[in-house]
Amino acid sequence: MRTIDWIPGEEAGPGHIRMIDQTRLPGDTVVLDIHTVDDLVDAIARLSVRGAPALGVAGAMGVVIAAQQFDEPARAEQAAAQIRAARPTAVNLSVGVDRALAAWRTGGVPTALEAALDLRDEDIAACRAMAALGADLVRSLAARNPHSRAAGLTTMTICNTGALAAVEHGTALGVIEKLYQDGDLALAIACETRPLLQGARLTTWELAAMGAPHQLIVDSAAAMILAGGGVDAVLVGADRIAANGDTANKIGTFALAVAARYAGVPFIVVAPESTVDRATATGSDIEIEDRGAGEVVGFGTITTAPAGTPARNPAFDVTPAALITALVTERRVIRPLDGDRPDKATPHD
Amino acid sequence: MRTIDWIPGEEAGPGHIRMIDQTRLPGDTVVLDIHTVDDLVDAIARLSVRGAPALGVAGAMGVVIAAQQFDEPARAEQAAAQIRAARPTAVNLSVGVDRALAAWRTGGVPTALEAALDLRDEDIAACRAMAALGADLVRSLAARNPHSRAAGLTTMTICNTGALAAVEHGTALGVIEKLYQDGDLALAIACETRPLLQGARLTTWELAAMGAPHQLIVDSAAAMILAGGGVDAVLVGADRIAANGDTANKIGTFALAVAARYAGVPFIVVAPESTVDRATATGSDIEIEDRGAGEVVGFGTITTAPAGTPARNPAFDVTPAALITALVTERRVIRPLDGDRPDKATPHD
Repeated sequence: MRTIDWIPGEEAGPGHIRMIDQTRLPGDTVVLDIHTVDDLVDAIARLSVRGAPALGVAGAMGVVIAAQQFDEPARAEQAAAQIRAARPTAVNLSVGVDRALAAWRTGGVPTALEAALDLRDEDIAACRAMAALGADLVRSLAARNPHSRAAGLTTMTICNTGALAAVEHGTALGVIEKLYQDGDLALAIACETRPLLQGARLTTWELAAMGAPHQLIVDSAAAMILAGGGVDAVLVGADRIAANGDTANKIGTFALAVAARYAGVPFIVVAPESTVDRATATGSDIEIEDRGAGEVVGFGTITTAPAGTPARNPAFDVTPAALITALVTERRVIRPLDGDRPDKATPHD
Repeated sequence: MRTIDWIPGEEAGPGHIRMIDQTRLPGDTVVLDIHTVDDLVDAIARLSVRGAPALGVAGAMGVVIAAQQFDEPARAEQAAAQIRAARPTAVNLSVGVDRALAAWRTGGVPTALEAALDLRDEDIAACRAMAALGADLVRSLAARNPHSRAAGLTTMTICNTGALAAVEHGTALGVIEKLYQDGDLALAIACETRPLLQGARLTTWELAAMGAPHQLIVDSAAAMILAGGGVDAVLVGADRIAANGDTANKIGTFALAVAARYAGVPFIVVAPESTVDRATATGSDIEIEDRGAGEVVGFGTITTAPAGTPARNPAFDVTPAALITALVTERRVIRPLDGDRPDKATPHD
């Protein structure tokens, strides 16, 4: 099933959102049916749905939910704003909300729904295009890598950027999936991604489901493994790409970029064009969400630190463009080190 | 109480080892009384006692236990070898074993015990000396740091290098404790230290006990926080220092060193002279223990990754001397960037 989708309604209204509850993976595959704005905001905040592309679709479909739920336009707009604010760092969420909101203002609920379904279908197509562009890029970079092994390519990734972060296929993990399908993948190394362990819980689950050879590591082992040679590329997603190419992504991404640079390993960001935020000049303008001490002082129901331990819990960090070998979107490969910037005209602009 | 100590016996034999069971902290303070080699090997392997200096004391006292337990010298030697092999990366363990073993061969159990108690007392004195030298070094480096705050110094550390890693005071955390006692500490940032969370469980426990201001972070947030400015020094311990200054320490230390270099933050290793292994030429000669997938695929009693997920779990990494601003021992400050090497003559040689 798709990570997030729209279930058409019977006679009473256009329908509702259905999503996989990612907080229950890999233990249980639980499906959530979302009929109200409150339930959607809760699902987004608890990370039942996460990943920039999936959040965009959730935001757009959320506007349809809001327009159905509230007859009064001002109240529906307010509910849409509430969805937009559920996670501040991911630009796709607000892009999705705004797109469906504009459609709704033009043509009401049917037009908003059409916009949301278009966004869903565009995401599916964009992920396919990114996978093809990204896999070709990794192959061409590896061809120049004297350490690359004949047995195939070794990739490293953080967080989950697979089908679970999008609709049908992923971004960075979509590239890794494509390499596997093409017979070019020797090993996919997944960083566990503290504090919420999306790598351990979700990425390994997807890699196992596709049958790809993989290995889980703690985040802090990545630098040593990169420096040891044999990794052909680090591939990560993005929650927001500034006009100059600075990229916000899951906490730990910047650490990986610094380590990849030290080790001479290509560092590649894979994200749809909708992640490029031309209104944000540089990474220092990106708001970083702090999710509070709870996630750091324990895991799940286990408390690991002494009671009352203060913690800092930035959910994202910003990787400067200067550390990024290439940004891959569904339309282009941007190379910041060659002076290329995401806010320059694209082939389709 | 001391992290590890010797409890003199009644008439039947010289005594036994008493230690805090660190696997139970911070939840419970449980004391282990160790009378046999098997129990000691088990305690070392389970990390009930850990930390390079404490392992040295455990190794030396373990020889006394072995000599008491086995009448036949060959069997006692074999038991000593078993203790030595319980953790391969920490040089102090084998140094402690070898020292007590040599004493035992010379004068039997009483001489071995004397050697073990000397080692314990030397560790206490060495930690005091390192704390003083290290704190002075951090203050002098911070005086040159334009970002250093008037409110005091901010330090970052990984794993646990406090009293729990030694006998009475720690190595790197001993320096931080000294800064706090001198009124110079604004904030001690502790990396949680996956997979076994010694930072979250033990370092925060010690910092809270001493009343020092502190903050816990996930390991992968360290790079971002270092790059953000305001950290005056990263202070870490060492399990083995090669002749050229390359240093093996807890996994994640190398990642911190790379990030500290990128951010221009001093990176300081604090360890006793006994950690310097002149027989190991460079870091590439250091054996790195892999502790198996179990610690990575879960979190305490919770399994986080899908069943059967393959994992790589190096317990240590090696930081090249070129990334180390200074190595502080009880006798000297070694600056690899100035061409200084640990295997050069020391003031006391």
